[in-house]
Amino acid sequence: MKKTRLKKYAELIVKMGINVQKGQDVIINCGLDQPEFVKMVVDYCYKFGARKVTVDWYYQPLDKLHNRYCSIKTLASVEKWQLEKWQHRVDTLPAILFIDSDNPDGLKGINEEKSAKARMKSYPLIKPFRDAMENKYQWCIAAVPGKEWAKKIFPNLSTAKAMEKLWEAILYTARVDEDPIKAWELHNKDLADRCAYLNSLHLKNLYYKSNNGTNFRVGLLPNALFMGGEEVTLDRNIHFNPNIPSEECFTSPRKGDIEGVVYASKPLSYNGQLIENFWFKFENGRVTEVHAEKGEEVLRHMVKMDDGASMLGEVALIPYKSPISDLNILFYNTLFDENASCHLALGTGFTNAIKDFEKYTNEELHEMGINESMIHVDFMIGNKDLSIVGETMSGEKIQIFKDGNWAF
Amino acid sequence: MKKTRLKKYAELIVKMGINVQKGQDVIINCGLDQPEFVKMVVDYCYKFGARKVTVDWYYQPLDKLHNRYCSIKTLASVEKWQLEKWQHRVDTLPAILFIDSDNPDGLKGINEEKSAKARMKSYPLIKPFRDAMENKYQWCIAAVPGKEWAKKIFPNLSTAKAMEKLWEAILYTARVDEDPIKAWELHNKDLADRCAYLNSLHLKNLYYKSNNGTNFRVGLLPNALFMGGEEVTLDRNIHFNPNIPSEECFTSPRKGDIEGVVYASKPLSYNGQLIENFWFKFENGRVTEVHAEKGEEVLRHMVKMDDGASMLGEVALIPYKSPISDLNILFYNTLFDENASCHLALGTGFTNAIKDFEKYTNEELHEMGINESMIHVDFMIGNKDLSIVGETMSGEKIQIFKDGNWAF
Repeated sequence: MKKTRLKKYAELIVKMGINVQKGQDVIINCGLDQPEFVKMVVDYCYKFGARKVTVDWYYQPLDKLHNRYCSIKTLASVEKWQLEKWQHRVDTLPAILFIDSDNPDGLKGINEEKSAKARMKSYPLIKPFRDAMENKYQWCIAAVPGKEWAKKIFPNLSTAKAMEKLWEAILYTARVDEDPIKAWELHNKDLADRCAYLNSLHLKNLYYKSNNGTNFRVGLLPNALFMGGEEVTLDRNIHFNPNIPSEECFTSPRKGDIEGVVYASKPLSYNGQLIENFWFKFENGRVTEVHAEKGEEVLRHMVKMDDGASMLGEVALIPYKSPISDLNILFYNTLFDENASCHLALGTGFTNAIKDFEKYTNEELHEMGINESMIHVDFMIGNKDLSIVGETMSGEKIQIFKDGNWAF
Repeated sequence: MKKTRLKKYAELIVKMGINVQKGQDVIINCGLDQPEFVKMVVDYCYKFGARKVTVDWYYQPLDKLHNRYCSIKTLASVEKWQLEKWQHRVDTLPAILFIDSDNPDGLKGINEEKSAKARMKSYPLIKPFRDAMENKYQWCIAAVPGKEWAKKIFPNLSTAKAMEKLWEAILYTARVDEDPIKAWELHNKDLADRCAYLNSLHLKNLYYKSNNGTNFRVGLLPNALFMGGEEVTLDRNIHFNPNIPSEECFTSPRKGDIEGVVYASKPLSYNGQLIENFWFKFENGRVTEVHAEKGEEVLRHMVKMDDGASMLGEVALIPYKSPISDLNILFYNTLFDENASCHLALGTGFTNAIKDFEKYTNEELHEMGINESMIHVDFMIGNKDLSIVGETMSGEKIQIFKDGNWAF
């Protein structure tokens, strides 16, 4: 991959992704796969005025060892210094960047029950800090190729060729061309227009139907808005793009108001483990049946993580024909696959989907019907015959999706 | 490199290096060069009973960016959570492993003054914690090949061949053969015997002379012992080997009692910057002149880091003919080069060199004449015509080294 193109991508992430402010701290969380690219990103962070950039490197294969040898108590332990570190984040509100290159089934075979129990134990300790930061800082998830990931997508290519091809795909989906920043400004405008139209319909229900068996209804909140593309931090009003790429118009549905059966249309990599050919049945807004040809155990633990883990936090609309789906690549990575397909997410919803959310406390926003959970797991449901019909507050039915694509 | 041989090396580091205890935490500090080897080390740590193993990865090239863009204040800042993290180390006494693969001149061209000032500012904040841990935990420095380092040593080989050759050299010097653990038990015995003989002489002075211009005297402390190979932690009496490889018999000299001129016989990589062809003049135990053909600026900042930085903390004896020097490789890395050559170190001395050191406070040990500083920088002075004559308490002169090798 040409260095000039990679530099454009690094600049895009820093400028449009986390939009680093003068004097702000930056934390970068990433694997060991592309240190030279990470260096470019760090360089841009400083050029845009970052006070201090900290890179927290991690190596996914070690998580397998921790899972095997450590007790749940050890896995779940959060030391005093770690709580102080969270407090420091709350106090300084750094921009946080996640650069993903994980092997989609890098944690295959771990003891999922142990892992889930540990996460359940540690989550309450960290939650107060996460809550205190919510909607107040810029964050972004972007991706770079890792060898195992590239070989998973392109198993018949050499590692070098697979890596090259994955770089190509990542840069294409991230609109890294002549002028990526300009392209994202236009793209954000386009997503905003589409959301404005959806919001003008005042929908109270979405009815999903497909020949694959999907047949269900999602209830929407009267004061929840569809959002897409860039977001804005509270207080400091800093624009940022939480996902690169992003093609979705999404909102948070009404907690407890989902009925029917929904089939996944793509595999899901959850915590380094692949789940394939699965479906859920929802009753009174809650998952009551779980089936998967592969990874059912993982899925079962997932929906039991806490009270909100079996309810939906997100509904996202993406046409079957989109720049990412046109590539016709199964990425085995949510950041890409969710942007090539209508999807839902189990777990926590977006408090900032509520109109004028800044006027309410988090508790009030959750009481309004935004789901709350320690998990937020997107899964893909879009396919080429998906139909979505919206029902407005006044009972009018409007075709939103037809044959997998926007109907308007 | 064969996996079975690497596993032996990993086991050696964990068993003989840091000697991980059941239920103990381990911290590993390493670059990004050999993650698969690091994984083997983590696996052994757990197999030997570690409670939790934490790997702190770092990427040397980022330090150049931090140095360029951050203010001294930012570089020197130690946040409250970082102090808590140090306190946690003091409370739990984890074993700490450093796996070095740095490019010997990876930080060439950084603003050394800025770097030195930042270190001087942050050191006093961390010192109380370091003091509280001193001699109480196991630690070890070992090495693995990094690409830039390998190419620095073998510039005419391809990167792959240079890496292979550096692995060979590292494993050879670390005695990774049939039974490395047995080999280290024998080696430790040998070093202990040699130190016992040196200690039986009750030396008060060492006189160094070489045709390269070296001509100086080092005063020794009556109650300081020569040590070599394995050490033992205070309180818990855990044996460990702080350096792999290690060929030296060393002690801490009497602070303020060094006179004359000493020429370095090998280059020195200090903080990622190479210093070549240098010499020091000592008066009343303190460096009063510094000369270097390359890197003099770095050296000048180094000896001014604090009051103890211009005084000696270590005197180490290694024959010119030794397993490491027989390889005839200039490693540009202190861990290896110091073990192929008599050396000295500017900066802090070893409080545990004092007989029955556990009976004294750190303050008392420094008052006895052990130098104290934030730095400890070894530099090599051995060569093939080096003569060292020892003078005993009773004034008798004994040849210790002749023509670069042990005279006895």
